Amino acid sequence: MECVVGIDVGGTTMKGGLVRDGSVLHAERRPTPRAEGPGAVIAAISAFVADLAAPRGELRPTAVGLAVPGLVTPTHAVFSAAFGWRDVPAEAFADVPLPVVLGHDVRSAGAAELAYGAARAEPNVLFLPIGTGIAGAMALDGALYGGAAGWAGQIGHIPVHPDGLPCGCGQRGCLAAYASASAIAARCGETSAAAVVSRTDQEARQVWDEAVDALALALATYTLLLDPALVVIGGGLAQAGEALVGPLRARLAARLAFRRPPGVEVSALGTQAGLLGAALLATRATA
Amino acid sequence: MECVVGIDVGGTTMKGGLVRDGSVLHAERRPTPRAEGPGAVIAAISAFVADLAAPRGELRPTAVGLAVPGLVTPTHAVFSAAFGWRDVPAEAFADVPLPVVLGHDVRSAGAAELAYGAARAEPNVLFLPIGTGIAGAMALDGALYGGAAGWAGQIGHIPVHPDGLPCGCGQRGCLAAYASASAIAARCGETSAAAVVSRTDQEARQVWDEAVDALALALATYTLLLDPALVVIGGGLAQAGEALVGPLRARLAARLAFRRPPGVEVSALGTQAGLLGAALLATRATA
Repeated sequence: MECVVGIDVGGTTMKGGLVRDGSVLHAERRPTPRAEGPGAVIAAISAFVADLAAPRGELRPTAVGLAVPGLVTPTHAVFSAAFGWRDVPAEAFADVPLPVVLGHDVRSAGAAELAYGAARAEPNVLFLPIGTGIAGAMALDGALYGGAAGWAGQIGHIPVHPDGLPCGCGQRGCLAAYASASAIAARCGETSAAAVVSRTDQEARQVWDEAVDALALALATYTLLLDPALVVIGGGLAQAGEALVGPLRARLAARLAFRRPPGVEVSALGTQAGLLGAALLATRATA
Repeated sequence: MECVVGIDVGGTTMKGGLVRDGSVLHAERRPTPRAEGPGAVIAAISAFVADLAAPRGELRPTAVGLAVPGLVTPTHAVFSAAFGWRDVPAEAFADVPLPVVLGHDVRSAGAAELAYGAARAEPNVLFLPIGTGIAGAMALDGALYGGAAGWAGQIGHIPVHPDGLPCGCGQRGCLAAYASASAIAARCGETSAAAVVSRTDQEARQVWDEAVDALALALATYTLLLDPALVVIGGGLAQAGEALVGPLRARLAARLAFRRPPGVEVSALGTQAGLLGAALLATRATA
């Protein structure tokens, strides 16, 4: 049975698998050896591809899709600050006799949400995975938008509180400095945002409150600019579920004066969106 | 010689004319009788259309384009807070035997900028007219974007300073509360933003400074989300020229950590963009 290889290359973990028609038939995780440098990550991806591309029982992979961060074209990883890549061709990631297609990690996950998830019926959607960082995939009139040079969707670094908390990017007051899972955890001395959500003390409540408020500000801005019908929250923070989207819906509505807010939902695909999106790259390239 | 009628219906003035191939062959202005109610404005537009649609020398108008504020489809003015309109059909605006097409005022002006102005060669552009209010026309991958329900581009009401100055919309800290021409004038007790620009006292310098900074914040946000190649400033405030775009370019660059800023230019079409855009609606409808 024909299928495709998909790998979602994250900063700490690579999620790989064999996928057919949006169903994951086989899944594996491996660490991303980011600390070992640009070449080590490429070599680890290539080894992962080789293992997944080998026939497995009745499954015959026909193509490979890789979802990676940074500035990406289907044939090149043009630039990645996270991995130190510059102009790496797709073939460098895969020493197998199959077509290999690259895609942007967040936009690929967004494509999976559009194809299989909560955003299925909507042409104007913001898909917002919140994890170590925050980036957005924007479906505008049914197509994923990349911008003039492929840099669109950097919602994690919009200034929600000018001159506010310092952000790793060098600016102050960015959304990610308040609302990324890593920022929420770090502000409370925890190792995960989930630990903060479960705490009831005032420090934790205030950090969570400021995170939700920063998200409401950013979504108000996005809504006023782009008039989406739906916002789908993904990534690790989406596991907070109603504790996140309940207050977020209320505060977003309160920040909008003259228009109704879009729907705000939690991703149904969860952390599989990236893998399904990577597979979709391969499926579409060979269709 | 065939031409089209275009009218840009503003809150205080209607700019009408006869246009052919982006050239204004005849132009007139009339007051918009907004204080007299929804029907009076419709009647004034209809009378203006009738006068402009009559043959004039060798000029033979073949169609009518009307650029109006609010939520607009080509056949209906669905909703306008400024004029109190609800579901007004295009025919109500023009009692002439010519096709009549409606368009959104700011997006029509943006279309003219794309067709004839500084944005001609760029598929990803923000056109930002700044006058009594601030709204944006967004060209994304070469097409003007309207959003899920036609409400996109409300950049004047994004919260640049959460809980900052009160805005007429009912929220606080909106871009328009700092950087609209009317807000700049009102904060200094002047009747025009131009008067503020020409003053050298500390109050005027600070208000101007805060206006430019609010614009830089809003454009940083827009740039991070939508990665435009170019921002074109139009409307009355664009007449400040280098006094506006010089400091704005510098502050926008300073607000962006990891990416280059887009170009920032002043509109070459100036206050004619709306009229040319209205004419473009008629031209495209009859092409």
